Amino acid sequence: MDDKLVVCLAGMPGSGKSIIVKVARECGYDVVVMGDVIREEAERRRLEPNPENLGKIMLELRRSEGNAVVAKRCIPKIQKMAKSKVIVDGIRSLSEVDEFKESFPKFGFIAVHSSPETRFKRIYLRRRSDDPETWEIFHERDMRELSVGLGDAIAMADWVIVNEGELEAVKEKVREILRRIEEKWMK
Amino acid sequence: MDDKLVVCLAGMPGSGKSIIVKVARECGYDVVVMGDVIREEAERRRLEPNPENLGKIMLELRRSEGNAVVAKRCIPKIQKMAKSKVIVDGIRSLSEVDEFKESFPKFGFIAVHSSPETRFKRIYLRRRSDDPETWEIFHERDMRELSVGLGDAIAMADWVIVNEGELEAVKEKVREILRRIEEKWMK
Repeated sequence: MDDKLVVCLAGMPGSGKSIIVKVARECGYDVVVMGDVIREEAERRRLEPNPENLGKIMLELRRSEGNAVVAKRCIPKIQKMAKSKVIVDGIRSLSEVDEFKESFPKFGFIAVHSSPETRFKRIYLRRRSDDPETWEIFHERDMRELSVGLGDAIAMADWVIVNEGELEAVKEKVREILRRIEEKWMK
Repeated sequence: MDDKLVVCLAGMPGSGKSIIVKVARECGYDVVVMGDVIREEAERRRLEPNPENLGKIMLELRRSEGNAVVAKRCIPKIQKMAKSKVIVDGIRSLSEVDEFKESFPKFGFIAVHSSPETRFKRIYLRRRSDDPETWEIFHERDMRELSVGLGDAIAMADWVIVNEGELEAVKEKVREILRRIEEKWMK
């Protein structure tokens, strides 16, 4: 058991998880990026950390070590962190949520949502990609994320932030939610 | 092809779909309840329409006629409706969304979200149930809904409404979103 407050964060690609992480950092949170576990594994296997390899490693690790493998590898990292509040970026399934909840009873779970259209624009249009296959690649990535359970996790979040523009309003919402999660555990 | 505007609605049990439907009705929408297809099927099979039977029939219909079976049976109902705007209550998977989108190009997709804690209170505590198994039954129902793809659908919605109290604010949000969906198709 650990006395740290752990706030987990889930969102589809391009939904704006990084904004939430930025605000949390400003509010005194340490940050754990779940994807780093996969990148570390790619390094160990001497594979280039491109999206395709990382996706494959993720699916393979889950198959061989269970759906919560990435969460399990994050827990000792969190325990070693300096701050008493940690945000975990990149929840992808309910089993990961359960894993963190079990290790850190002071727990909160936030999902961030943007429409597929908004997410697509964020990821691709600002890169000026006009490849007609771009939407297909985007959609395939979405489906890969859903196939590991990301949609289930989002549907079961304690808090949902709708991120459709109005950056300042979204940031204020994040601060409010973090405050309310902290208040819950200060009782 | 049909010229009607079809707005689909998804949400976990107790998330407050009925509030959204009520507002849509006030805004001039006809309402199709997807669950009615299952209830009609129960009647046809002379089974009592209790949650257990309805759940079983739903899973069985999907297995035998595909994931979009309920959507397919709703489409002629929608086509026969009087009004030009229809809200569809109770999307449970992305294949249902795709089915409606194909038949009705003027399309919008809203998800409503409340935390599991809020949903549980809404469904059970107001009924003064203090059965210790109640949470388990609630959780099992959630997992059954997720298993057919409800979480994936929610994660892919065009619009998400966060329904955590403040009823008037939620209703205003629904009206605003319906207005924006309608504007999109009036261009």
